[in-house]
Amino acid sequence: MTRTQLTEKILDIKREKGWSWKYICGEIGGMSDTLIVGALLGQMKLVKPLAAKAAALFGLSAAEQSMLNEVPYRGMPMPPTDPLIYRFYEMVMVNGPAWKALIEEEFGDGIMSAIDFDFDFERMPHPKGDRVKISMSGKFLPYKYYGAEQGIPEYGFKEE
Amino acid sequence: MTRTQLTEKILDIKREKGWSWKYICGEIGGMSDTLIVGALLGQMKLVKPLAAKAAALFGLSAAEQSMLNEVPYRGMPMPPTDPLIYRFYEMVMVNGPAWKALIEEEFGDGIMSAIDFDFDFERMPHPKGDRVKISMSGKFLPYKYYGAEQGIPEYGFKEE
Amino acid sequence: MTRTQLTEKILDIKREKGWSWKYICGEIGGMSDTLIVGALLGQMKLVKPLAAKAAALFGLSAAEQSMLNEVPYRGMPMPPTDPLIYRFYEMVMVNGPAWKALIEEEFGDGIMSAIDFDFDFERMPHPKGDRVKISMSGKFLPYKYYGAEQGIPEYGFKEE
Amino acid sequence: MTRTQLTEKILDIKREKGWSWKYICGEIGGMSDTLIVGALLGQMKLVKPLAAKAAALFGLSAAEQSMLNEVPYRGMPMPPTDPLIYRFYEMVMVNGPAWKALIEEEFGDGIMSAIDFDFDFERMPHPKGDRVKISMSGKFLPYKYYGAEQGIPEYGFKEE
Amino acid sequence: MTRTQLTEKILDIKREKGWSWKYICGEIGGMSDTLIVGALLGQMKLVKPLAAKAAALFGLSAAEQSMLNEVPYRGMPMPPTDPLIYRFYEMVMVNGPAWKALIEEEFGDGIMSAIDFDFDFERMPHPKGDRVKISMSGKFLPYKYYGAEQGIPEYGFKEE
Amino acid sequence: MTRTQLTEKILDIKREKGWSWKYICGEIGGMSDTLIVGALLGQMKLVKPLAAKAAALFGLSAAEQSMLNEVPYRGMPMPPTDPLIYRFYEMVMVNGPAWKALIEEEFGDGIMSAIDFDFDFERMPHPKGDRVKISMSGKFLPYKYYGAEQGIPEYGFKEE
Amino acid sequence: MTRTQLTEKILDIKREKGWSWKYICGEIGGMSDTLIVGALLGQMKLVKPLAAKAAALFGLSAAEQSMLNEVPYRGMPMPPTDPLIYRFYEMVMVNGPAWKALIEEEFGDGIMSAIDFDFDFERMPHPKGDRVKISMSGKFLPYKYYGAEQGIPEYGFKEE
Amino acid sequence: MTRTQLTEKILDIKREKGWSWKYICGEIGGMSDTLIVGALLGQMKLVKPLAAKAAALFGLSAAEQSMLNEVPYRGMPMPPTDPLIYRFYEMVMVNGPAWKALIEEEFGDGIMSAIDFDFDFERMPHPKGDRVKISMSGKFLPYKYYGAEQGIPEYGFKEE
Amino acid sequence: MTRTQLTEKILDIKREKGWSWKYICGEIGGMSDTLIVGALLGQMKLVKPLAAKAAALFGLSAAEQSMLNEVPYRGMPMPPTDPLIYRFYEMVMVNGPAWKALIEEEFGDGIMSAIDFDFDFERMPHPKGDRVKISMSGKFLPYKYYGAEQGIPEYGFKEE
Amino acid sequence: MTRTQLTEKILDIKREKGWSWKYICGEIGGMSDTLIVGALLGQMKLVKPLAAKAAALFGLSAAEQSMLNEVPYRGMPMPPTDPLIYRFYEMVMVNGPAWKALIEEEFGDGIMSAIDFDFDFERMPHPKGDRVKISMSGKFLPYKYYGAEQGIPEYGFKEE
Repeated sequence: MTRTQLTEKILDIKREKGWSWKYICGEIGGMSDTLIVGALLGQMKLVKPLAAKAAALFGLSAAEQSMLNEVPYRGMPMPPTDPLIYRFYEMVMVNGPAWKALIEEEFGDGIMSAIDFDFDFERMPHPKGDRVKISMSGKFLPYKYYGAEQGIPEYGFKEE
Repeated sequence: MTRTQLTEKILDIKREKGWSWKYICGEIGGMSDTLIVGALLGQMKLVKPLAAKAAALFGLSAAEQSMLNEVPYRGMPMPPTDPLIYRFYEMVMVNGPAWKALIEEEFGDGIMSAIDFDFDFERMPHPKGDRVKISMSGKFLPYKYYGAEQGIPEYGFKEE
Repeated sequence: MTRTQLTEKILDIKREKGWSWKYICGEIGGMSDTLIVGALLGQMKLVKPLAAKAAALFGLSAAEQSMLNEVPYRGMPMPPTDPLIYRFYEMVMVNGPAWKALIEEEFGDGIMSAIDFDFDFERMPHPKGDRVKISMSGKFLPYKYYGAEQGIPEYGFKEE
Repeated sequence: MTRTQLTEKILDIKREKGWSWKYICGEIGGMSDTLIVGALLGQMKLVKPLAAKAAALFGLSAAEQSMLNEVPYRGMPMPPTDPLIYRFYEMVMVNGPAWKALIEEEFGDGIMSAIDFDFDFERMPHPKGDRVKISMSGKFLPYKYYGAEQGIPEYGFKEE
Repeated sequence: MTRTQLTEKILDIKREKGWSWKYICGEIGGMSDTLIVGALLGQMKLVKPLAAKAAALFGLSAAEQSMLNEVPYRGMPMPPTDPLIYRFYEMVMVNGPAWKALIEEEFGDGIMSAIDFDFDFERMPHPKGDRVKISMSGKFLPYKYYGAEQGIPEYGFKEE
Repeated sequence: MTRTQLTEKILDIKREKGWSWKYICGEIGGMSDTLIVGALLGQMKLVKPLAAKAAALFGLSAAEQSMLNEVPYRGMPMPPTDPLIYRFYEMVMVNGPAWKALIEEEFGDGIMSAIDFDFDFERMPHPKGDRVKISMSGKFLPYKYYGAEQGIPEYGFKEE
Repeated sequence: MTRTQLTEKILDIKREKGWSWKYICGEIGGMSDTLIVGALLGQMKLVKPLAAKAAALFGLSAAEQSMLNEVPYRGMPMPPTDPLIYRFYEMVMVNGPAWKALIEEEFGDGIMSAIDFDFDFERMPHPKGDRVKISMSGKFLPYKYYGAEQGIPEYGFKEE
Repeated sequence: MTRTQLTEKILDIKREKGWSWKYICGEIGGMSDTLIVGALLGQMKLVKPLAAKAAALFGLSAAEQSMLNEVPYRGMPMPPTDPLIYRFYEMVMVNGPAWKALIEEEFGDGIMSAIDFDFDFERMPHPKGDRVKISMSGKFLPYKYYGAEQGIPEYGFKEE
Repeated sequence: MTRTQLTEKILDIKREKGWSWKYICGEIGGMSDTLIVGALLGQMKLVKPLAAKAAALFGLSAAEQSMLNEVPYRGMPMPPTDPLIYRFYEMVMVNGPAWKALIEEEFGDGIMSAIDFDFDFERMPHPKGDRVKISMSGKFLPYKYYGAEQGIPEYGFKEE
Repeated sequence: MTRTQLTEKILDIKREKGWSWKYICGEIGGMSDTLIVGALLGQMKLVKPLAAKAAALFGLSAAEQSMLNEVPYRGMPMPPTDPLIYRFYEMVMVNGPAWKALIEEEFGDGIMSAIDFDFDFERMPHPKGDRVKISMSGKFLPYKYYGAEQGIPEYGFKEE
């Protein structure tokens, strides 16, 4: 059994039952919807209590439940050909240089973590057409300057 | 003169003057910092009054000022090799499928615009390490179902 | 069941029945032929009433009908190796720069939407060989200049 | 001198003079704007009388005028990273399969020419936002079935 | 059923029967061998009377016969790794620039069609080792200069 | 000095003098036009007497003449974006499998040489539009079955 | 049946029987080991008498025996990820320019054939660690200068 | 001035002076050699006091000193063609799956940081040939399970 | 049976039994955990006694046991999309140039072997978050300067 | 100064002087011709005494002589488009799997070194056309099975 086969099985059941993701996330609960849906699509791990709830909901075997608790091989083929996902890719491609310049000026040498980050989106009603509002925050991780002597900042935080 | 040459000239002046992006954006003003920095890095257009201010600040020629008012050929080589930009790319690569599933369930068939979208980031102090907080909102654009007969939704909004 | 398997099943039935796309689109109706054929080939969503008609026509199961109502992961491998599709790709590759220059001069900074666009083609008889006539129109979406102050155009429409 | 250098020179002059493409095309005339702009951007050939007019307008040397009359090495790097051009690329990537199915059913085995084709776009005012209207027609070129015996259609036109 | 599966089935039968391509093309007849073999390998369409003959020869079902009459998605992965096909690819890669220069000088701006072209090869005995002799001719398609005024050549034929 | 710089210099002179390739090949002579143009474009070597003639014609230095006599690093970026060259590439991509099947059946296991091959093209007048007629022949090179024992064909010629 | 499936079957039998390649090549004989193993792995053709011996050894069907006698679609995905094969790839990548310079100086304009070439390797005992000794020889194929006049070398052999 | 130009200048001076990296790192000091060399090669930032020392050593201008203090656009083209760097790439390609399995089992869901990591290498004398000994340690960053309810681990640390 | 299928079977059993890698490596023993896990994931060979132990543990057939003793086709698709493996890839991409400079200065011209290398990792408790500590050592292999005369170093060791 | 610029300078001098590689290698001496030519083309390092001889021969500056003594960033773009180099690439692509099978059976788990290897080629006269004879030998490097217990072979040599 591969993770792709498990995802296909879960989507088959979702389709047959006519369940929405909202319903499924409500039943499993315990974490953000993005993480739960990500796990069911094969990109995230479900911690044990949630994997158990998912297994109960979808009627999965013990091995399938166990697989949901495994960290999958993450990622999808790039560039994304699907327009919805491509638009996010384009935001990075067009705005990446400016984000880099501004974040480094504000925080110093480092990155915004893609691991310790949270993400939320909500519908923002708007008279000219509703908007997708996305909020995310990621921990800033400064480049470590190892071997640093005294008087040299050990981490890449903004220099005075 | 190419846009790349103009960007290099602007960065040379910034370096010689010791200016920060914050200072530069404050002098030019009128739009979000991301857009101004993006324009100076060759990814965005500066509208005429701002191009004039930028030209005055950097001592640019009339032709250079005019080039800042042009829409550049946007985009950068992908995948990004720089870690800071790569982390955003990875967020899309890992979370794209879940975002697609949840946005389509909430909004129907369509995309979140990468054109009519706004973006802001701020520093979020945190005891375990400060965080980069990003807020963005993009207009939801439903797929148009052209040739739609009466009784068929003309646009891809969520079906009842 | 994957969307590819559903497409293959639909094409098998079409072949066995000897149906033309014209006949199939006539039976399902309600939207443009390009969208209906696109959905049956796995690139578009059929809204519920049309998915029901398609299911009745092809004798599909409830789950298969439901899958036709889902937004698929759109896109195909590029560059296209098939000559018919490649010619469209070549038009973009050769004429893209001129289209960009002219559209931006006429409309300002922005794009022609690939989401809110309609498309039609017809046969144009011609003594030297019939022609394929294509008409399409897409909504112009101006780049949003967020954070714009008063006096600065909020959207990228053509500056005076 | 390369064609890229000539294009850069022409754009420098356009910028210094403050000319629009509309003005330039009006001065050169004789062919569609898309072709004239395409030639000045290095993707098309200008026939001799138009190359002469362009040379007079831009003050080009005889060798530069001669280069405008040459067929350039056409094409640009793909996939396009610029959002405006990418949207056209996406239309092909998402709708290509349906276009192929419908054109082949209507015309038989063959292609729509990307060489013998004309193209026009215009602004279509619309209360919800103006639209870009594109019309194009390309000669249908049937696949030649060479070596065809009598009774076998020599060309790929739609079989009865 | 996919076209690949049909090709595999046809090759299985060819192998079991011990038929040569010469024999198969003799039985089906009506078009050049390259086209018939191309169709059986999934790159070309067989017109109806030939598809019927092929179906009789290979004992195919009505649906399989119908599939042979469909235009396949043409093309193969490139660059070709097989040495025989690579040599043709290399001819284009090495000689393409000279062919372009000479054809454009002789014919003007345009292409040699890959659709309306015929192809033949024969064995040419030679004392130092036999040669493969290839003859092909393709219709020259001049670039259309649409929107052309009087006095401007409407097509890209060689200018006087 | 690179070969690319020499090619650019030769094209500059050709343009300034208003020479055609036909004229240039007539002046240099001694080999097929495709080879002479190929050498001037940096894909072929000119043997010494021809390099001398080319140097006299274009007024080249001794080092430049010597460079024309060198074997260049052959090849161009693929896939070709220029439509004229792409059509040849497409012929290989679409017809390669059939060519392989037929050549191997006729000649046995081996290739048609891209090194020991000659090439010629001519204009073929045709009432429906002139055609480009191409003739080429390449030596068939059988795969060597080294280590072959007696009774086993040493070379890959067609088995009886 | 595909060639990949036949290779998998042969490897399954080899594994079950516990045969070495040396044993298999001894049983089939008649050609070099590299060619026999290459054929069983799907990269070479076995001539008829050897295909018959291989079929007897592995207990293959008549169709499978026939497939071993077919010329396969040669080649594997590149660059090779396996370290053993990569080292050969690296030798070409690092030493290719020097090999080209030296072979062309010694032999003139042409190539060393990859078709008419033989290959052998043996174990070379060495006190610091045994070495793999490889010997190969390929026919030098000079570039044909077709259309060559008298006094011009017809082939690309080293000029005096 | 680009960072590449600055790197080239620094290497020119190093070569003219005959300095070793060891000498240079000794003069600049304050951080690990890998970081200092990385900065001089354009992959890292030198903090201000070190940039000042480097500027004094190499006789750089104020603008060049300032550029050394900037965070560069990190990364190099991949896969690396140089054998020394490729071997590290190969270690990841061959051992990546096992490292992932073992690290996730020991630490839970997360990554080893490439930002907060230190690196050292030393020569390890060995009778059969000296060895390169590498030690590195990177902070383990657990995937954040945002939106986690009580009782659900907030971070991806190893579950009991 | 392919190696991928064997890996999938082994992972299925591991999941059903609820075994950890630590437990599995303890049962098989005899080599480092990285090598054992690598072999079970299809990247390494298990020597015969360990393949026998693995077969007993997982209840494998003789052929499956034999396959574990074969050297697999090593490597995985790159760049890695999974974040954990990507971080190692990024370390090479960002630090490769500095590692090359420093290793060559210390050892001379050559590489650190990716074949004769050992690898170990351990958990390093740390108050700010535990760290992954990696130690590896690889034999330095100097480039052989073959054909070296007396007085010229035969190997690429550091010159005095 | 880059290594590419130095190579171009050396080739300019070679061309102006009319020197052959044989002459140059004779003057520099001390190592195999392949290594000397490789170094002058920017792929290898010349040890100090040879760099001195090369500098004297070509009249290089001290900095240029020093650069010849540096280990360059090795490798060239792949796949090679030049036919002479491609044929070597093709040998690896077609024969790689068989070489892997046979070398591993003879030597055990490991590779043939691309670093500690020597290479020689010579002209082999042959009545049907002279041949390029290549001899190379590379040290076999067995995969190290680190952490190996007693009774388990420490290295990957052929198991009994």
